[in-house]
Amino acid sequence: MGGSTANRKVVERAISGSGDLFAKTRARTLALVDGLSPEDLVVQSMEDASPAKWHLAHTSWFFEQFVLGQYVPGYRFFDERYLHLFNSYYVQAGTRFARPRRGLVTRPSASEVLDYRHAVDRAVSHLLASPPKDAAVEIARLVELGCHHEMQHQELLLTDLLHAFSFNPEMPAYRAPEPLAVTAGREPEITWQAFDGGLVEIGHDGKGFAFDNEGPRHKVWLEPFELADRLATNREWQDFIADGGYETQTLWLSDGWAVREQEGWTTPLYWFEKDGVWWSFGLRGAQPVDPDAPVTHISYYEAEAFARWAGARLPREAEWEHAASTVPVDGHFVEGGHFRPRPATGPGLTQMYGDVWQWTQSAYSPYPGFVPPEGAIGEYNGKFMVNQWVLRGASCATSRAHARATYRNFFHPHQRWQFSGLRLARDR
Amino acid sequence: MGGSTANRKVVERAISGSGDLFAKTRARTLALVDGLSPEDLVVQSMEDASPAKWHLAHTSWFFEQFVLGQYVPGYRFFDERYLHLFNSYYVQAGTRFARPRRGLVTRPSASEVLDYRHAVDRAVSHLLASPPKDAAVEIARLVELGCHHEMQHQELLLTDLLHAFSFNPEMPAYRAPEPLAVTAGREPEITWQAFDGGLVEIGHDGKGFAFDNEGPRHKVWLEPFELADRLATNREWQDFIADGGYETQTLWLSDGWAVREQEGWTTPLYWFEKDGVWWSFGLRGAQPVDPDAPVTHISYYEAEAFARWAGARLPREAEWEHAASTVPVDGHFVEGGHFRPRPATGPGLTQMYGDVWQWTQSAYSPYPGFVPPEGAIGEYNGKFMVNQWVLRGASCATSRAHARATYRNFFHPHQRWQFSGLRLARDR
Amino acid sequence: MGGSTANRKVVERAISGSGDLFAKTRARTLALVDGLSPEDLVVQSMEDASPAKWHLAHTSWFFEQFVLGQYVPGYRFFDERYLHLFNSYYVQAGTRFARPRRGLVTRPSASEVLDYRHAVDRAVSHLLASPPKDAAVEIARLVELGCHHEMQHQELLLTDLLHAFSFNPEMPAYRAPEPLAVTAGREPEITWQAFDGGLVEIGHDGKGFAFDNEGPRHKVWLEPFELADRLATNREWQDFIADGGYETQTLWLSDGWAVREQEGWTTPLYWFEKDGVWWSFGLRGAQPVDPDAPVTHISYYEAEAFARWAGARLPREAEWEHAASTVPVDGHFVEGGHFRPRPATGPGLTQMYGDVWQWTQSAYSPYPGFVPPEGAIGEYNGKFMVNQWVLRGASCATSRAHARATYRNFFHPHQRWQFSGLRLARDR
Amino acid sequence: MGGSTANRKVVERAISGSGDLFAKTRARTLALVDGLSPEDLVVQSMEDASPAKWHLAHTSWFFEQFVLGQYVPGYRFFDERYLHLFNSYYVQAGTRFARPRRGLVTRPSASEVLDYRHAVDRAVSHLLASPPKDAAVEIARLVELGCHHEMQHQELLLTDLLHAFSFNPEMPAYRAPEPLAVTAGREPEITWQAFDGGLVEIGHDGKGFAFDNEGPRHKVWLEPFELADRLATNREWQDFIADGGYETQTLWLSDGWAVREQEGWTTPLYWFEKDGVWWSFGLRGAQPVDPDAPVTHISYYEAEAFARWAGARLPREAEWEHAASTVPVDGHFVEGGHFRPRPATGPGLTQMYGDVWQWTQSAYSPYPGFVPPEGAIGEYNGKFMVNQWVLRGASCATSRAHARATYRNFFHPHQRWQFSGLRLARDR
Repeated sequence: MGGSTANRKVVERAISGSGDLFAKTRARTLALVDGLSPEDLVVQSMEDASPAKWHLAHTSWFFEQFVLGQYVPGYRFFDERYLHLFNSYYVQAGTRFARPRRGLVTRPSASEVLDYRHAVDRAVSHLLASPPKDAAVEIARLVELGCHHEMQHQELLLTDLLHAFSFNPEMPAYRAPEPLAVTAGREPEITWQAFDGGLVEIGHDGKGFAFDNEGPRHKVWLEPFELADRLATNREWQDFIADGGYETQTLWLSDGWAVREQEGWTTPLYWFEKDGVWWSFGLRGAQPVDPDAPVTHISYYEAEAFARWAGARLPREAEWEHAASTVPVDGHFVEGGHFRPRPATGPGLTQMYGDVWQWTQSAYSPYPGFVPPEGAIGEYNGKFMVNQWVLRGASCATSRAHARATYRNFFHPHQRWQFSGLRLARDR
Repeated sequence: MGGSTANRKVVERAISGSGDLFAKTRARTLALVDGLSPEDLVVQSMEDASPAKWHLAHTSWFFEQFVLGQYVPGYRFFDERYLHLFNSYYVQAGTRFARPRRGLVTRPSASEVLDYRHAVDRAVSHLLASPPKDAAVEIARLVELGCHHEMQHQELLLTDLLHAFSFNPEMPAYRAPEPLAVTAGREPEITWQAFDGGLVEIGHDGKGFAFDNEGPRHKVWLEPFELADRLATNREWQDFIADGGYETQTLWLSDGWAVREQEGWTTPLYWFEKDGVWWSFGLRGAQPVDPDAPVTHISYYEAEAFARWAGARLPREAEWEHAASTVPVDGHFVEGGHFRPRPATGPGLTQMYGDVWQWTQSAYSPYPGFVPPEGAIGEYNGKFMVNQWVLRGASCATSRAHARATYRNFFHPHQRWQFSGLRLARDR
Repeated sequence: MGGSTANRKVVERAISGSGDLFAKTRARTLALVDGLSPEDLVVQSMEDASPAKWHLAHTSWFFEQFVLGQYVPGYRFFDERYLHLFNSYYVQAGTRFARPRRGLVTRPSASEVLDYRHAVDRAVSHLLASPPKDAAVEIARLVELGCHHEMQHQELLLTDLLHAFSFNPEMPAYRAPEPLAVTAGREPEITWQAFDGGLVEIGHDGKGFAFDNEGPRHKVWLEPFELADRLATNREWQDFIADGGYETQTLWLSDGWAVREQEGWTTPLYWFEKDGVWWSFGLRGAQPVDPDAPVTHISYYEAEAFARWAGARLPREAEWEHAASTVPVDGHFVEGGHFRPRPATGPGLTQMYGDVWQWTQSAYSPYPGFVPPEGAIGEYNGKFMVNQWVLRGASCATSRAHARATYRNFFHPHQRWQFSGLRLARDR
Repeated sequence: MGGSTANRKVVERAISGSGDLFAKTRARTLALVDGLSPEDLVVQSMEDASPAKWHLAHTSWFFEQFVLGQYVPGYRFFDERYLHLFNSYYVQAGTRFARPRRGLVTRPSASEVLDYRHAVDRAVSHLLASPPKDAAVEIARLVELGCHHEMQHQELLLTDLLHAFSFNPEMPAYRAPEPLAVTAGREPEITWQAFDGGLVEIGHDGKGFAFDNEGPRHKVWLEPFELADRLATNREWQDFIADGGYETQTLWLSDGWAVREQEGWTTPLYWFEKDGVWWSFGLRGAQPVDPDAPVTHISYYEAEAFARWAGARLPREAEWEHAASTVPVDGHFVEGGHFRPRPATGPGLTQMYGDVWQWTQSAYSPYPGFVPPEGAIGEYNGKFMVNQWVLRGASCATSRAHARATYRNFFHPHQRWQFSGLRLARDR
């Protein structure tokens, strides 16, 4: 009886927690598209990116598909056609509209998609208000998953929008420009932070929310290593450019050099030169490059070449996670409202979270004992475990609630449109 | 003195004629986008196509660039940035925004582009109301050219929109569906119309408006020939399909077969099968194929293979023009408001104008003595005189005022998104 | 009876003429590959080109397929597998080995292919020695066709080999270098040759050999025109380069500029700069460009842009043929053994034949009344009548017996690996 | 003194060992090309592959570049042009001829390349006979490296040749067909071999030859695991096919499915169906698939999907190496002369070496503490450490002397032309 009561309380807390998270997350998504026109919302600039309208719809689809459709008796989908139109890659959830054509879906309109969102909001809230007893925990779990899914899409919405805007010769600003942060001259040299390594544990232990790919928690042997106390900066990147980094083939991985040649890379994405000064385009429009801010919009290949040039290397993901477990989850996230990375401040191991995602030298592979869940939800992460490299930390476009030490972000080594940067590491 | 008065009257008539045409043309463009959302207006489905918003802006750019900027003293451009953004391919008119990226220009918005249109409308009207005396004829001529340029873009606006809509699984209808035309069963067999040929003249004689590529008028020797009295129909095309036309390599030109293989063509563009019946997608949504209506959305390759299958051939453009000069410029144009080709009616040589453009077997080459005008306007037609094939007539998306016997339309042999069909010809 | 005797004599002459031509043609092919290694014979440098070994085999296949297999009772093919392997594009003659893979056929070896040739030689000679009476004329006709077919492949063999050699950094010479022709300083300015035009006849009249695409003979109306008395020279081309011809977009057709951009063309094919001097690679290895020799290895796009730069135009094919009919079929052919174009000499209309093929502004289209023969032979020419442009004359790699006023050569406008040049024309 | 003597003996042994290995390795390369024609030797079927002649030359280049050029005073290169022509990817060793064009180098001929080999053989033998004292050990080390480099190219020579032959419709056999091995019916079910894991060591310890990428030896934590006692067989692969493995998207990694779709894979490379029976093409020509032999010519994507279908997974490379250290380096290598994988025999953990390389689930990444050597030799392995996956073991085309437990082979996940197969693993 006590057990039953305790259980009920656990369930209530879970449901209530999910409800709060749901309300907050859904509201933030709308806040992010505030001020965007229907045209801004519909375009797609490359296959890797999606229209903002699609993000608005797909995150709603997720709740319809995996929560409402499963747990609301006799649930009627808002529009049966959306099941096809707004599925992303879940094969087991049915057919999917062609990814490279998402930007051609002018109808439903942005306003119809917002109606869709509201209908889903109401239905989920209603379900959470009086969930079927035997499924309450599972519903809470799925709603929480859907919220974290939506946080990922919030970040993609911003980076996809920036990418689309970057093709406009007028260089429109998503948010009004703000002055660069005031910093006290050149940042200090890197202060290396030492770690002894040994037999450590990494991965999620199952307490609190995590994606399936973060577990199981498992042992890893680490040799002694050091991490830079901060992210690599634009000043250092300008030195790399000035030193011929983009023209020195021996600094580059073979595949990286091939991409660099083909794409003609000579700077990070969105950089351009004006009157002898480096500028970059960002969510606050075009601005001079801030030398003290972390470099961003670089590929794995560039990060790796830079590290070699610097006489260092990229961290392994286990090293990063082991080090990250020594500092609180704090930093400059999307809630800060700057929408761009900012210079490091303070002593010790800084910027482990926020500002920019940090490329590691680790391929995105399954942890020992990893088994994806049954069904479509199991496609969330597992099927991408080849050809991608792990990034750790979080960025200025990530929700604070979405950052944690065990989080494994992943992209292909040539991709640059995320807020991706790096932190140097070296053997002791 | 009498001459001077006569001249003045000519000038006045020219100016007044241009003014009427301008008002009417500009109004029709707006009527065509009536009911479209900002999202509908911004998308671009392939490099060959352009967003409707771009068409709205580029046709205004044309008047700004070639009329207002030249003839209004101290003219201030509506927005200097538009000069780059909305130039299409006029190298001598300055830089141009990348064609394949036109669909990413979310800003200026549709409403800003409409403001641009209105400003240009006012300025042109103002100029036409009191033109500088010594330039009045030239201004009238350029405004007339700009109107015909805009009529071309009206047609492209419709075909580009249809192409974009075709990727939407919801198959949105540009205009509400209307029932198929009632026709009296199977159309009669072709009645061949005979022509003697001989030494004839084709090409524009300079009276009234024409594009530069329609002249000079010149002699051509024609052998005796016959033309079908009507366009090839969907019924005939279904026979072609049923008879294995798309699988019989020997019917096809070598380059045509290669494209057919690569693209996997088995029907005209926009056709699909549903429950054993052929349907096609068009500006009035998806409808069953009308067997009596002219086939449309076919490439030159398909037209040519069909003609071989039918034991006939495509007409040469001189044959077509010679025959067309015997009938009035009449037919089913955009003013009819059907937005799709309709069955032939009546006796004699029908459907020479309207419904669908007719592929000829003539490459788009300069006529003897052709010299393009000086300057950017000279880029209008001449530089495309290779690799394209001539289509004659007009389509259900063409303005009546835009159709004439000497008109030379041209597209690459693989292109299918225009209202393109064919009429059979044969030697006598 | 007299008729019968006369007929018999005609037949005998036809057979005997074919036999001579056959012996001579087959021998020349072997002479052309003299000195080439098995490796030289097997490689293929692009899809447009074929290995020399393939040319050796395919020309034999032609006689087996169209003569021996049809007219020798119980004929046993040398190797059934060769029917597939060495068919080029004759759909009605059965399956064909993938064109882009021809260079991977290391077996049969060169020596086996030579055995194949000898076997075919013997069988054809045997057949010609005692042909079946009722088929003798047809056999003679087909053997003659096969010989002209082989002459085409002789030319391709040389240009394909040159293309393959051009990728070898050692720049091997097909034939030993020889000094440039001694010429008397700068060639004179162009002397324009005037023609009145009017209603003329072009096309083959059926007397003597011609390909099907050269007929029927038919009337064409020509406006008065002029032709340059000689081919365009390397000196003129160097002026074109020096004057920024390759960088001036307004000189180029739109499609031509796109190709020039994509390919990065800045000179004709095979040109390179060494110590401030233009060199070119050819069948006699790398040599300084001869300013008095005709320019070669240029695309239609380059020829057309050059003509515009020169204030002239390319001839129409009817103009060219009409003019060519006024001079004897003479010039610098493959028999000369120079394997490269040479400077013009003498007065009047020179270099109409030999040195380099001359791009015309005429698309390769069927003449009025053209009907290809029945069966596979009908695929020889007709199915290529789209997207290609006509070249007239002949080149330094053409047999004298293969040159005539009505000959229509054709290539795609971007292709440059043939001995292709130009002669200027203009309206009077 | 004793130390000095001991040292001298070590040096002598090293030199003598290198000399033996050199003679044997160089001879085997020649034996492998025995019976091939100059045409067989020159062709290149794709960018990933190289002509056999190139392998013959490049392996000689390696000794010239890194040994003779460094350690023979006043050494004159056989042909300076070969330094460019036969460099593969060593940026620090100078310029390189374009990889995709290797198959167009008809000159130097095969026989000139053999002369080159012989000259290098003589010079290296001469150097080893009386090496400069202070460089003797380094020379021995480099010659040994060059021999192992050549063994890699021996294997590539065979797989590249097979790939080129596979395009020939005559399906030529590299070596005469031999009957399939006689096996006693269906092989037993897999007997899983269990390992406890724990903190183990992997990587090369520096004793004997190894490539730089095999070290340093380092600790790895392993969870308990099991390995199949033999390689996956063709019988199992046929079951996978029959069970719809190639059509079941949920079995595949996302990138794998995309490649499978694009390439249309439905079987391993070189398989085809004839009269309802599976055949495969190999170095002994086309033969029916041997159900008991290991499956080969599969990509990582296929291996990974197969493992999922089988309810298992691929081994990690550390698991594989840990297990391999328990069995002797024995198996079916190139010396066996079968040139194809053969069925497993005997109890226990079999086929760890030879037959086919075994895909692991490990990305090819640097070991902790890995530092590539200075100079061009340092480009051997390190710059490929991204986007490739590790294969372990050896194949029927590998020299016995080339196989060892620490060997890390690596290819891109889509590549199939190597003798690549798999062994199943699972968690305990």
